[in-house]
Amino acid sequence: QNALLSSTGTTVFTVMSALAVQHGAINLGQGFPDYEGPEPVLRAAADALLDHRNQYPPLTGVPELRQAVAEANRRFYGLEIDPVSEVVVTSGATEAITACLMAVLDPGDECVLIEPLYDTYLPVVRMLGAIPKLVRLTPPKWELPRAELAAAFGPRTKAILLNSPMNPAGKVFTAAELAFVADLVQRHGAYAVCDEVYEHLTFDGWSHIPLMTLPGMRERCMRISSAGKTFSLTGWKVGYITADKSLAPNVAKAHQLLTFTTPPNLQRAVAVGLGMDDAYFAGLSTSLQAKRDRLAAGLSALGFAVLPTQGSYFVTADFRPLGFTGDDVAFCRHITEAARVTAIPVSAFYAGEGAPNHYARFAFCKADSVLDEALGRLAAWK
Amino acid sequence: QNALLSSTGTTVFTVMSALAVQHGAINLGQGFPDYEGPEPVLRAAADALLDHRNQYPPLTGVPELRQAVAEANRRFYGLEIDPVSEVVVTSGATEAITACLMAVLDPGDECVLIEPLYDTYLPVVRMLGAIPKLVRLTPPKWELPRAELAAAFGPRTKAILLNSPMNPAGKVFTAAELAFVADLVQRHGAYAVCDEVYEHLTFDGWSHIPLMTLPGMRERCMRISSAGKTFSLTGWKVGYITADKSLAPNVAKAHQLLTFTTPPNLQRAVAVGLGMDDAYFAGLSTSLQAKRDRLAAGLSALGFAVLPTQGSYFVTADFRPLGFTGDDVAFCRHITEAARVTAIPVSAFYAGEGAPNHYARFAFCKADSVLDEALGRLAAWK
Ligand SMILES: CSCCC(=O)C(=O)O
Ligand SMILES: CSCCC(=O)C(=O)O
Repeated sequence: QNALLSSTGTTVFTVMSALAVQHGAINLGQGFPDYEGPEPVLRAAADALLDHRNQYPPLTGVPELRQAVAEANRRFYGLEIDPVSEVVVTSGATEAITACLMAVLDPGDECVLIEPLYDTYLPVVRMLGAIPKLVRLTPPKWELPRAELAAAFGPRTKAILLNSPMNPAGKVFTAAELAFVADLVQRHGAYAVCDEVYEHLTFDGWSHIPLMTLPGMRERCMRISSAGKTFSLTGWKVGYITADKSLAPNVAKAHQLLTFTTPPNLQRAVAVGLGMDDAYFAGLSTSLQAKRDRLAAGLSALGFAVLPTQGSYFVTADFRPLGFTGDDVAFCRHITEAARVTAIPVSAFYAGEGAPNHYARFAFCKADSVLDEALGRLAAWK
Repeated sequence: QNALLSSTGTTVFTVMSALAVQHGAINLGQGFPDYEGPEPVLRAAADALLDHRNQYPPLTGVPELRQAVAEANRRFYGLEIDPVSEVVVTSGATEAITACLMAVLDPGDECVLIEPLYDTYLPVVRMLGAIPKLVRLTPPKWELPRAELAAAFGPRTKAILLNSPMNPAGKVFTAAELAFVADLVQRHGAYAVCDEVYEHLTFDGWSHIPLMTLPGMRERCMRISSAGKTFSLTGWKVGYITADKSLAPNVAKAHQLLTFTTPPNLQRAVAVGLGMDDAYFAGLSTSLQAKRDRLAAGLSALGFAVLPTQGSYFVTADFRPLGFTGDDVAFCRHITEAARVTAIPVSAFYAGEGAPNHYARFAFCKADSVLDEALGRLAAWK
């Protein structure tokens, strides 16, 4: 059997979700809402099942969704995208990330990855025979270490994978940080895989800037987003990649080897979603910001040192002020069992040695009553 | 950009489907039905969208579907499968094939592939850094060349990929052929990736035998099937892998890197489908057998030398008796343009030199009126 996979543990999200079920814990671990997506999107998906378009859609996606993705790029970012040659629909952002890495990386190429990182990035880069170069951001400030980032680029750098808004950091990269990244990418003739699934989940006036909008980056970026986070439908697994016509064909060929196509009824419903009015998108972030505030205030009141969240579904919090002396893995297991509340250890987002190990990540994309109950349980445990 | 993908052409299925649209041709190329899947399955999928289970399902699939897959294995083949630890649901059979190859192949391993082959097999094996060993079956007899197959196995063989019923050959492997394969696999301590998506589409009393049911093969096979072909819903992209508990964990980890999960409403509907009565499965093959006969008889009457089809959606036919002197690629383009009927050149299923190039593959999974119209157009062209 494959050695890389054999030595890879089951994903922390599955492990912690299973542990949550086992202990009847409120699951603030894996990032999924406990509320439903917009009714018109659900209805559109159900209706689309019954009108005779259940066979293979085009490889790169149904025309309605490619058009809607192109329009969303114009509406939100002023990007002019050709729906025919510059959009590839995938079966979720996970597939999109794998497809984009496949599209550009050759064995022996170097790929810059930024810790904290989502747990598929590193094994996929390795599976492709490419060499990961890790650059580390750490809490509490999550500052971009510019010198280290510059040092990670070299003559063999083919790509960087950038996640903004960033999971679990809750960080939204600034225009200045993005300009620094863009300059490195261009000077090394590299590509950027941009995991932007939390693009619409930003708070306090922070707004997401796609790396693709920076000067000179239009041809170098593969910009990924997904319906899961944008429409609170994480199970649907409909992702979309925006990439220059010089890059999109290889992305499409990777997609062909991975899934070939994505269910047409869900694609057509996501097109309906992307066409919703500004009130929907504003409402999504307003509502999540209130949930963030609710959970963050509650955790602070319990004694956690809560870090700011500019975007995403997550707050991270230092649990040492509570007097817990174990590491973050022990802490997350402990509160699952003893308080019946589940969180994700932040060290799970680090691959190298010496990762920060005294922070837990809590998802706030839950009903207010659930957040309150979780806080109540933590208070009772403490 | 990645050299392997850059040098891979767009799949023949997409190329020919696009050409069909361009010329208003009847598309007997890409294998998808023009009729709908069973009403109860469609209804179940629509209903399941509206009952609040649209978030991430478990990594290996919803319990209902894993249970249904285990039961189908018992019902159709007498295989005892544990639904918790021996089933992995994927986003279609394409993903399943890629996941199974990833699960076992290490760079430098050899993988035996049998031509004719589906066009993702070879690039995926190469992408994983493994070495393909091709063994060739040729029309009109599609006989398994036992000596060549045995010679393709060696000390570095890690896996064989076997497709039965076989596309485009329409061949159902016999018990004796499977025993020969099983013996080679066991003697070399290898694994078998079994692409069995046409398992329920067999004719004339031919019945599909999973390699996994042969003595000693229970632990060595990853058996793949999918809802697309079984329920005439090729767009849904719900596949399922049955594998021993010693293999399934690596398959699940590969799935995690490729898509992570598959839409829960479609999974739940496929569970309903797998539970349908014997009349459904018998009716599927009876109805397709009649379509096969209709198309084969019509092509024969036009002068094609039509090969027998034991299973799958396809008949292959030698077009030389019609006096066409170009190769199969020229023929398929020509009839698309001149007769407005599209087929797939059989040489597209061969990777090496000297492939058979005077056969076209026609899909018969279409309404009778469409098959008749296609035959009428071919008659008018001829
Ligand atoms: C696909 S499971 C992980 C979901 C997620 O994005 C997260 O919890 O970080
Ligand atoms: C996924 S497109 C190809 C469909 C198919 O199985 C075939 O036509 O051979």
